[in-house]
Amino acid sequence: MKLLIRPFGKTLEVPRSADLREALAAAGIQLRSDCGGIGRCGQCRVRSRGGLSPPTPAEAENLGIGELRKGIRLACQAEIQDSSEIFVPPTSLESRVKILVEGLPQTLRPDPAVKKQILPTPPQRGSRDLGWEALCARALEPAPRLGSPTLTLLRRLAADGELAQGPVSLISRGEQYLAVETEPGEAPLLGMAVDLGTTTIVGYLLDLSSGRLLSHAARKNPQAKYGADVVSRIVFATQEPQGLSYLQAAVLEALNDIVREAGGKARVSQERIFEICVVGNTTMHHLLLGLRPLSLAHFPYTPVIREALELPARELGLALHPEARLYLLPLIAGFMGSDTIGVVLATRMHRRRSINLAIDFGTNGEVVLGNRERLLAASCAAGPAFEGSQIRYGMTGASGAIDAVALDPRGRVRLHTIDDYPPLGICGSGLVDAVSEIRRTGAMDRSGRLLSRNEAGRGNLASRLTRLGGQTAFLLYGGQNRDRVRKIYLTQKDVRELQLAKSALRAGINILMRELGVRERDIAQVFLAGAFGNYIKPESAMGIGLLPAFLRRQIKPVGNAAGMGAQRALVSVRARREAADIARRVEYLELAKHPDFQKEFIDGMAFP
Amino acid sequence: MKLLIRPFGKTLEVPRSADLREALAAAGIQLRSDCGGIGRCGQCRVRSRGGLSPPTPAEAENLGIGELRKGIRLACQAEIQDSSEIFVPPTSLESRVKILVEGLPQTLRPDPAVKKQILPTPPQRGSRDLGWEALCARALEPAPRLGSPTLTLLRRLAADGELAQGPVSLISRGEQYLAVETEPGEAPLLGMAVDLGTTTIVGYLLDLSSGRLLSHAARKNPQAKYGADVVSRIVFATQEPQGLSYLQAAVLEALNDIVREAGGKARVSQERIFEICVVGNTTMHHLLLGLRPLSLAHFPYTPVIREALELPARELGLALHPEARLYLLPLIAGFMGSDTIGVVLATRMHRRRSINLAIDFGTNGEVVLGNRERLLAASCAAGPAFEGSQIRYGMTGASGAIDAVALDPRGRVRLHTIDDYPPLGICGSGLVDAVSEIRRTGAMDRSGRLLSRNEAGRGNLASRLTRLGGQTAFLLYGGQNRDRVRKIYLTQKDVRELQLAKSALRAGINILMRELGVRERDIAQVFLAGAFGNYIKPESAMGIGLLPAFLRRQIKPVGNAAGMGAQRALVSVRARREAADIARRVEYLELAKHPDFQKEFIDGMAFP
Repeated sequence: MKLLIRPFGKTLEVPRSADLREALAAAGIQLRSDCGGIGRCGQCRVRSRGGLSPPTPAEAENLGIGELRKGIRLACQAEIQDSSEIFVPPTSLESRVKILVEGLPQTLRPDPAVKKQILPTPPQRGSRDLGWEALCARALEPAPRLGSPTLTLLRRLAADGELAQGPVSLISRGEQYLAVETEPGEAPLLGMAVDLGTTTIVGYLLDLSSGRLLSHAARKNPQAKYGADVVSRIVFATQEPQGLSYLQAAVLEALNDIVREAGGKARVSQERIFEICVVGNTTMHHLLLGLRPLSLAHFPYTPVIREALELPARELGLALHPEARLYLLPLIAGFMGSDTIGVVLATRMHRRRSINLAIDFGTNGEVVLGNRERLLAASCAAGPAFEGSQIRYGMTGASGAIDAVALDPRGRVRLHTIDDYPPLGICGSGLVDAVSEIRRTGAMDRSGRLLSRNEAGRGNLASRLTRLGGQTAFLLYGGQNRDRVRKIYLTQKDVRELQLAKSALRAGINILMRELGVRERDIAQVFLAGAFGNYIKPESAMGIGLLPAFLRRQIKPVGNAAGMGAQRALVSVRARREAADIARRVEYLELAKHPDFQKEFIDGMAFP
Repeated sequence: MKLLIRPFGKTLEVPRSADLREALAAAGIQLRSDCGGIGRCGQCRVRSRGGLSPPTPAEAENLGIGELRKGIRLACQAEIQDSSEIFVPPTSLESRVKILVEGLPQTLRPDPAVKKQILPTPPQRGSRDLGWEALCARALEPAPRLGSPTLTLLRRLAADGELAQGPVSLISRGEQYLAVETEPGEAPLLGMAVDLGTTTIVGYLLDLSSGRLLSHAARKNPQAKYGADVVSRIVFATQEPQGLSYLQAAVLEALNDIVREAGGKARVSQERIFEICVVGNTTMHHLLLGLRPLSLAHFPYTPVIREALELPARELGLALHPEARLYLLPLIAGFMGSDTIGVVLATRMHRRRSINLAIDFGTNGEVVLGNRERLLAASCAAGPAFEGSQIRYGMTGASGAIDAVALDPRGRVRLHTIDDYPPLGICGSGLVDAVSEIRRTGAMDRSGRLLSRNEAGRGNLASRLTRLGGQTAFLLYGGQNRDRVRKIYLTQKDVRELQLAKSALRAGINILMRELGVRERDIAQVFLAGAFGNYIKPESAMGIGLLPAFLRRQIKPVGNAAGMGAQRALVSVRARREAADIARRVEYLELAKHPDFQKEFIDGMAFP
């Protein structure tokens, strides 16, 4: 039988008695479900025009007679009995945040901190092969004397009583021996690289010896419930009793979830993970370690420590091998963290002769310019507009977010939404597209002022210009979506937010170029890192003047470069040394203090 | 008013309405009290002949009308109202184990692993003095670059936000910085040295910088409830599910108690303790670390590891400074632990030109012979007779134990008991005394056979010889103590146990001397370590042939030498290096495998 799914306009062919929730899921329409499909949470509400099995007691309890009369049902409870039409309100959709995981393909040359050494079968077969000294005696001559064993290793040796007569392998980090295995060469040594962002956390599971990526997993940063951005989390951490503990516990739980999921996908035990390497902004770094971020709250925003740190992972409660270490790449400044070091590592701009520009878009835009001779960096307080925040109909890049907009002069609007869900709002790349298109089609002047309908003349384009809460607004979407959002507008204030963001970034780029003494034509490549940087259309970015038009051909999206850099440092102590070197070399410019900043900032507001 | 205390025969002068329990305590008679004196546990029963306040409800509840009628009272409930007579049954006495704590006075030359460095006031007053780097910048030029800080230190830095403008001090261990303090020089750096014995645990709290002993505390080893000796604990640990965990938890709890008590006595916070250094026999070492002691259960009794270990103390749950380290001195063999290394360190026999003999008495007798050229060692399976175990009326060296015996030919017996309590049994030194005296007065022949009453002739001495359970026995005590022990005998079997113990030890000494090629006259000193070694009379030890008579003038009791050695290693990394060197140098002889052992053992059985 047939099921018409609105507002998606999809038609499904389903067998009789099929579970409605599962049928929808099979068609890619995931419904929210906290209760796991037992009719308790009431999140998977849909509206039907008949064709379903009679309501269950759980539905009667949850919906009441009024809702049932309107045709509201719980998809997890209903079975399909006849062809029908189902309306899925956006509030029932599981909004999956689109998280940028991939980066440029990279070849890692592993040089891991943790290594495995295979000890040969002992010469005297049948000799009782007990304890640490017997093991040391088996190390190949003239091998250097073995270092010291950990308690974990000793407990394993003691528990086994007698080791297998065959070869055993020893796992070591530097002078310390971590583990002993009697099935050498079988199980790989694993590591986890983590890009710990304000909004999202991405973890990559790698084989330390080969550098191969085995799986990845991502989560929204659950600290968001205590504050959307770093500043509000700093306030929460420093002013609420237990605030710091809550924030730390939230991120640790998410990390453990990510480790579990990535391990599950790769079908490996998380006990095989000996190293975890984390990059993140300075606030995320401090909150992860439980360091009170008071000094990040005011000028000069001094981190408690900038240098790289290596700690026992279990000191934080991470569920890995008991002797696993947490490695944190060095920070650059209060508003420039180890994620930027990760971007430099991944793009290798610190080793190139040519001048390159890297931009990592997040709540702040971090910009690095330079080459192997000199590296300048600045953090541009771009504000959260690029992430869809502070925008009237803004949203994060999740299912249903408008991420691409095209206008034609006749006022026709073509929208694209993430996962092709009905439009629920607009995300950063959609915003840049929309403003660029509105400007291109002439509905906005160079200063960023939306024209009034009168100024715009007649026609469909003009008809989209309207007044909303005392300001001019542009109607992007006026859909059928009666359950949540009737219409989606871009307001004058939204344009101003974007202008502030882009001019902050442009000012940063311009000042770095001037400080380094380079012009646009000297820049070989522009690396765009982070989700926003990868999803924006270069044309639109130039259309609004976010990037200098000159650089069009140099633009190279590099995906989650911070995460790629974390992977490099995870599998290579050489890369860790490079990271320390980068941290020492980067010259960080405090933009707000720069004499040219005001002028550059104001100049950057106008549209091209 | 006057109080006559029986069976002690003491008379106390007490004020009216005095608390009976407190009055007894003031006279040195401690009663048992698990409930802390609220009349609930019923342990402080005494018998009175009137003169006390009327019974309380708690007494009615606990004793019942029958006992109250007999004059039984709870001392914690009764107040003294008139002169009277109080009988204290031995079952109500708090049996305090006498633990040997003291050692020879020693001068420690501290060279501690943990050090304090005072950073001067920063040159620019008023500069914000934040974070690790600002601290590093304050280190005196041309001081080497500071090492890496611990998470604990960083959290403290972060919590303070801004450090005092005055001098601060940094506490470091090697390359790692552990703590920062804003009141430099005030609080001392502390360490705990522990002698972890099978029966008793003694902890010493020291100032690491000065080497000064601040306080000490001791506990019976609570593992005893799972097995009195190492072998039974090995069995329990390897064969009972969770057995190892129970044993480890028990000793850790005792260690934490000792730390708390020692800290309380010295009025210092246990958070100031940065190092804990433990010596103990190999089984205690393994159980402390949670290492399954399976390999110690059978030949060749190989320890899981012999070399010294250094671990984070919190890995075991010890409540010290969060960055405190547990240092374990190296082991010598399965039946010769780091306590013997401690004895060598304390007696400095590894650095002397003269040949010395050290004997540490415990369940095993550990013997070390040699000088700075060569050190030989053996563990003599002396059995537990020296500790009063396996002896019919034997007991550990607690209040009421007979610890000294003198006979005269007319059969008069003079006894001494620990704390002058009524005799409850006989401990090791009392046993040696008794056998030596019985032999000296002729009531036993050279082979160790007690004479029958007929053979001994008439007189008081002969009248003490009697039959008990099919064997000859000597009546040591026939007191008034009606509540528990009417009479205390020394049986023929007791004499045999002691003979086995002393001949095992003598055989060990003789074999070591032969192996080293020395005679009695070559031995400069005989160090007697451990409780038994310190409490026996040298004359009695020679009287039974435990020690060669020749050595009388060389004998030097050295107290708890193992504990003294632990203190040396606690405060000095130099001493730790010496300990490692001793462990490498000691030549351990497996006595049971030695060709001469049988003969020596049998020869050693006879009395001189």
